[in-house]
Amino acid sequence: MIRLHHCVNARSFRPLWMLEELDVPYELILHEFPPRVNDNAFLAVNPLGTVPALLDGEVCMTESAAICQYLAARHPETGLDVASQDSAYADYLNFLHFGESTLTFPQTLVLRYGQFEPPERRQPQVVEDYSRWFLSRLRTLEPRLESRPWLCAERFTAADVSVGYALLLASQLGLDERFKPNVSDYWTRLQKREAFQRALKVQHDTAVAQGVSPATAMAKAETS
Amino acid sequence: MIRLHHCVNARSFRPLWMLEELDVPYELILHEFPPRVNDNAFLAVNPLGTVPALLDGEVCMTESAAICQYLAARHPETGLDVASQDSAYADYLNFLHFGESTLTFPQTLVLRYGQFEPPERRQPQVVEDYSRWFLSRLRTLEPRLESRPWLCAERFTAADVSVGYALLLASQLGLDERFKPNVSDYWTRLQKREAFQRALKVQHDTAVAQGVSPATAMAKAETS
Repeated sequence: MIRLHHCVNARSFRPLWMLEELDVPYELILHEFPPRVNDNAFLAVNPLGTVPALLDGEVCMTESAAICQYLAARHPETGLDVASQDSAYADYLNFLHFGESTLTFPQTLVLRYGQFEPPERRQPQVVEDYSRWFLSRLRTLEPRLESRPWLCAERFTAADVSVGYALLLASQLGLDERFKPNVSDYWTRLQKREAFQRALKVQHDTAVAQGVSPATAMAKAETS
Repeated sequence: MIRLHHCVNARSFRPLWMLEELDVPYELILHEFPPRVNDNAFLAVNPLGTVPALLDGEVCMTESAAICQYLAARHPETGLDVASQDSAYADYLNFLHFGESTLTFPQTLVLRYGQFEPPERRQPQVVEDYSRWFLSRLRTLEPRLESRPWLCAERFTAADVSVGYALLLASQLGLDERFKPNVSDYWTRLQKREAFQRALKVQHDTAVAQGVSPATAMAKAETS
């Protein structure tokens, strides 16, 4: 069975959401943070000490957007994948990466230097630089979503999970107040998906069951 | 014909290198930096104002690692792609993303706050934080490369281009002095590839022909 190492609302929310979209069985292991960089048991699983770590037989993956594509490709019948022969393949790949490299990484700087570092190490300039960076990149989605409910292939795909997680993170940072109308509507559509709702519930219930505080376990692993 | 918008040694070196590996015809358009965020002609091509922008018929892509996978999949006969049915597919996807999200983005912070910002906006702490971040992540490649010349699938693939670019950037930052032995040997193997050498020559010759200074045109676009 697939095993997913996760911190509440960290990037590992992407594979968690994907697993719920696919409706396949999995085991969820929730970690407190600070992330287990000093936990030898977890380092044996993932030497990076980061989440996600997804184990599937011989497979071990650590990059959340890559895991989305992997899981989608394992279950082509769900339509969450876009095949390489499909005319939407280029857009699919581009948005899978865009969600992480262009929309998520800048926000981790806002988190790190705005919230997680001790006061004397905070960097208001970096927070401002990368808040603006994120919002300017996000604006380029406005025309894309003018006439489409989802990013590509005329259906919901793993690329929407990749970008959708960046919007979840933005909403936690309060940046959702600055979403433009089409992105705001898209974010509302994403939150209404049953699998998204189930993923939120599963991480909450698992946190309670495993004694991890859902309130404090936010995406701090991002900055590790 | 494929058209690639590029800045010298920026992330757009990935698709340039891939095009040389594939040996397909393309047109290279070199941009000075600061990147063309205020150039309406380029913004019409790529509203993000960043490089790379790769145009291939109806296709427009802006994420360098995604472009590597796209180009590889268009030319499966070259072996640079790994098909979704292949047992190495998970590793392939993971390293494609790892090269960018985990190994490249942190270095762009070192560049931005160590070199490109005016002196009063430089942030030595951020430079130190993300230099250490990069090197600690890079160390996890050491065991992987102990018994393999390339990252996955027992051959050179687009994933090596993704990670290889991160090593090129590190060498420009002087971080290559801190590479461990297996990564150092891997970096030497990558530099010896004929396509890598051709890509360096093409960007140099094009910079001269188009009047862009190769010396100053370094990866400044990274920070835009």
